Amino acid sequence: MQILVYAQETQSYVEALQEVAPHAKIFGAATLTEAEPHLEDTEVLFAWGVPPAVLARMPRLRWVQWLGAGVDLIVGQTPDDITLTRVVGAFSTVMSEHVFAYLLALRRGIFEMRQLQREHVWRRVIGPSLRGQRLGVAGLGSIGSEVARLGRAFGMEVWGLSRTDRGGEICDRHFLPTEMRDFAAGVDALVLVLPATPETDGIVDAEVLAGMREGSILVNVGRGNAIVERDLIAALRRGRPAMAQLDVFEREPLPEESPLWDLPNCYISAHCSGPSEPRLVCTFAAENLRRYLQGEPMVGIVDRERGY
Amino acid sequence: MQILVYAQETQSYVEALQEVAPHAKIFGAATLTEAEPHLEDTEVLFAWGVPPAVLARMPRLRWVQWLGAGVDLIVGQTPDDITLTRVVGAFSTVMSEHVFAYLLALRRGIFEMRQLQREHVWRRVIGPSLRGQRLGVAGLGSIGSEVARLGRAFGMEVWGLSRTDRGGEICDRHFLPTEMRDFAAGVDALVLVLPATPETDGIVDAEVLAGMREGSILVNVGRGNAIVERDLIAALRRGRPAMAQLDVFEREPLPEESPLWDLPNCYISAHCSGPSEPRLVCTFAAENLRRYLQGEPMVGIVDRERGY
Repeated sequence: MQILVYAQETQSYVEALQEVAPHAKIFGAATLTEAEPHLEDTEVLFAWGVPPAVLARMPRLRWVQWLGAGVDLIVGQTPDDITLTRVVGAFSTVMSEHVFAYLLALRRGIFEMRQLQREHVWRRVIGPSLRGQRLGVAGLGSIGSEVARLGRAFGMEVWGLSRTDRGGEICDRHFLPTEMRDFAAGVDALVLVLPATPETDGIVDAEVLAGMREGSILVNVGRGNAIVERDLIAALRRGRPAMAQLDVFEREPLPEESPLWDLPNCYISAHCSGPSEPRLVCTFAAENLRRYLQGEPMVGIVDRERGY
Repeated sequence: MQILVYAQETQSYVEALQEVAPHAKIFGAATLTEAEPHLEDTEVLFAWGVPPAVLARMPRLRWVQWLGAGVDLIVGQTPDDITLTRVVGAFSTVMSEHVFAYLLALRRGIFEMRQLQREHVWRRVIGPSLRGQRLGVAGLGSIGSEVARLGRAFGMEVWGLSRTDRGGEICDRHFLPTEMRDFAAGVDALVLVLPATPETDGIVDAEVLAGMREGSILVNVGRGNAIVERDLIAALRRGRPAMAQLDVFEREPLPEESPLWDLPNCYISAHCSGPSEPRLVCTFAAENLRRYLQGEPMVGIVDRERGY
């Protein structure tokens, strides 16, 4: 059996997979040129960032393990007879730490504290506590569930929104996507952890934004498609939401001409809320390979219709 | 009965206390001049920041409720026959949010993200997760216990240090003050929540700092006396600890000439980790007054010998 790992850093993956499949031929490739000689005979592809057109040139391919949580770049390009799996669970810890790093930083005013320090000014900065505030989590998969759990640890009331009522049991109140407006209007912090699907396209638009609470914070660590960026720029200028933290965008890298860069109440990160633990992704991938080899059900199989 | 409230903002206190003691004469004072006419007949004093010398001019005084958690400024000046109580519990939520705001911000690199945004640079910032790191909490009262609880919620291993083994049950391992060096050397984040007493004076000195781990973070939200600041300045220049967040200092306000202002790995806040919830202090004070009036044991009675 031949396995190809297509990623920026392949060595740790190759080693972990070889341990599970000692007799397999496993190749690593960081570029298309490096991958080229291995396309024809590869049965299993572990990939992140591979050009989807390559799949059509892999006649023996049976399974693609995407090395990320969101498969929007590949799902439409993967033939139906090839199993597609995504990573589930490995990103929830670091992504929810990212979310709470910003929620706490913005509520406690620590950017302001840092600025006062630069100016050598001794002045108290007092912000509201998270305790008793209402957290809204849109997307209740493994990442959203972990965000909800930490919200509870901080004494927040938790509202959740998801496509079905799965995950609803971890929330004080559950909403469907059609109820996004009421959901967003009722929370102090709105955290988006949604996959990119036709259903989530532009789900946060001018109308939803206009209904957000005074002082509210919007965080997006899911996919950039969920927010109509033009509407958000106008909304941030009006101060509803009061602040936004964006890790994902309609176009990435965020174009130089985007007004988001310079909005003082917009906090930008470069799509880096997730992947600080490649070790966890590696472990997940190796376990899925073990299941594949032993004919057990794999984890993270993508539903083509749902898109995740 | 006459009650005096001495604080910067007295109205909410006066109202809350009057509800508990409708027949008492309750006065508010923000300055010594305003307090002057009421000193002679006051039986109960609710105070924060009152000049301690005033107590000697209050012949009918029987009880002082300090409106803060740390009584180091008043405990030595309060005659032994006057009951002294401090606030217990009301600060734990906001102070532990302050601690985790900084731990997460420093680990996730969000100050660096903000700087990259200012420069319009799209670059991923990847930091380690708190999960699996070891948190050391020195001081296991109500505040330290809440810091420990949140540490667990983030999947950290928790070590604790306190004067007795009280509070030890919430830690994976417990240390006494004499073991500060080993304690500090074993943790990734050292959080000080210690009262100012002769026993804690300079407990974090050059030797303790030199033993800290590579990449470690020191946070002080207790009292400035615990750290030998001259030693910390030298230690931060050497990068052990890697970073410090200081909310309290040997002298406050922090003097303009202190090198701490400009050390890039030192994050300063102006003794503001605690008091964003005056409502909670108010509730605490009113409940203690109710207990006093009904002859029940009060909460937060200060042990003069221990100093807290």
